[in-house]
Amino acid sequence: MDKIKRNERLGALTRILTDTPNRIHTFSEFCELFGAAKSSISEDIDLLSASFARFDLGRIETVAGAAGGVRYRAIPSPTRIRKMLEEVAGRMAEPGRMLPGGFLYTSDITAQSSVARQMGEILAAQYYDSKPHFVLTMETKGIPIALMTARMLDVPLVIARRDSRAYEGSAVKINYIAGGDDRIETMALTRRAVSSGQRALIVDDFMKGGGTLQGMVDLMREFQVEVVGVCVMIATARPEEKRVKNVRSLLILEGFDPVTGCANIHPADEFR
Amino acid sequence: MDKIKRNERLGALTRILTDTPNRIHTFSEFCELFGAAKSSISEDIDLLSASFARFDLGRIETVAGAAGGVRYRAIPSPTRIRKMLEEVAGRMAEPGRMLPGGFLYTSDITAQSSVARQMGEILAAQYYDSKPHFVLTMETKGIPIALMTARMLDVPLVIARRDSRAYEGSAVKINYIAGGDDRIETMALTRRAVSSGQRALIVDDFMKGGGTLQGMVDLMREFQVEVVGVCVMIATARPEEKRVKNVRSLLILEGFDPVTGCANIHPADEFR
Repeated sequence: MDKIKRNERLGALTRILTDTPNRIHTFSEFCELFGAAKSSISEDIDLLSASFARFDLGRIETVAGAAGGVRYRAIPSPTRIRKMLEEVAGRMAEPGRMLPGGFLYTSDITAQSSVARQMGEILAAQYYDSKPHFVLTMETKGIPIALMTARMLDVPLVIARRDSRAYEGSAVKINYIAGGDDRIETMALTRRAVSSGQRALIVDDFMKGGGTLQGMVDLMREFQVEVVGVCVMIATARPEEKRVKNVRSLLILEGFDPVTGCANIHPADEFR
Repeated sequence: MDKIKRNERLGALTRILTDTPNRIHTFSEFCELFGAAKSSISEDIDLLSASFARFDLGRIETVAGAAGGVRYRAIPSPTRIRKMLEEVAGRMAEPGRMLPGGFLYTSDITAQSSVARQMGEILAAQYYDSKPHFVLTMETKGIPIALMTARMLDVPLVIARRDSRAYEGSAVKINYIAGGDDRIETMALTRRAVSSGQRALIVDDFMKGGGTLQGMVDLMREFQVEVVGVCVMIATARPEEKRVKNVRSLLILEGFDPVTGCANIHPADEFR
């Protein structure tokens, strides 16, 4: 193989690192791939690290120790987070999104993978230190954001179902109180999805009373799994009392303008 | 701003392009960001393009014309596709994955974002020329793969639901025949999700009889949307006759070993 120059390495290195967020690659992996000395790869990494910092593209970090190496984390700056959230809030405040029952139509926005990815980047950035083993969500609308959060943390996504399905094997079922009208619903998770002693990050798209989130917290207790965080894309300002405490929300839905029907929605204080 | 050198630009350029697959960025966007001449950016792109080709990392392409610029497409080589599919098939053939009714437990595999992403890369690569406006899937298990396919094509994901939910507004409902036992089920899609005259790519995780896929095809007919492709991650070899014709499958499930219970599963002929 010809000698591979720095100019050829930098793009390939970036592609490999950013394609596997939060995964540690060893220096020897890259030395072998490029037929380069560790010192050369190390200089490449320093260059990339500086360039990523300069253009607010996340972090390329060297991790010391026996299991050390290089990893990429998509940690956006506070300025970029605010910009992303304001842009999404702006779209959600467009006319015609109010649905009966005080709901907000957002499926078209969250189902855009670029939006789901950005929300996932912001959420994941809050929980790197908590080291969750998996991300838990309840079907269906939260899945895109939860999947992208899981991707950024490099952990699996676990999906609780409304009903246990034949093709997932034996399951644990719990009842929970859904919506504002105290309706009892069922949530199920296949037994083999998680193991006791693991740590879960709960992610959903929308919280009003917090019943569904409480259901997910209860479900994790059944599995003897520790919940290291509960977060949603949108929380309503009212009711102020939610069934689950300490829920992190990216956006706050204050309500709807009685004349225009537009949502009054803004980034949560933590991100303003 | 200091003059930004090529070494600093290459990583940032790669990160920006690969973060937005199939999206065309103009040269002037990069000239402005880096304070560089178009000829310099053009040389950067040539370097990246060659390096991506050399290491089988997808394509960085210059697109000519008025709406031209640069884009990244995650098109894996046939060798890499085969390797990815054989690896996934190998995991699916592990003991203990057979479920009652001839189903295969795959949720833990497809919910790993790296697997969903790889399957999405392979599927998207088959449909760039068909230019779908969106990817359609039916909740729940196909969502990770469908979302990653949509991400690679840079189009929205549209999710059909088992029931129309209050918070999605008025919906079109159809009945379809699910499973082998001719059970009638309902599939719903909110009216505002798609527009007539659009092109849809249908993606799901599993096909046995093809009833759910047929339901999605029928649903698209209701919306006067053209279906440019129907594809799944796994199709069973039997029954040979499926309700929908010309379904592209990544993997074929031949059946289960009667002694070990392990799945006999392999990449479809097209990818071997």
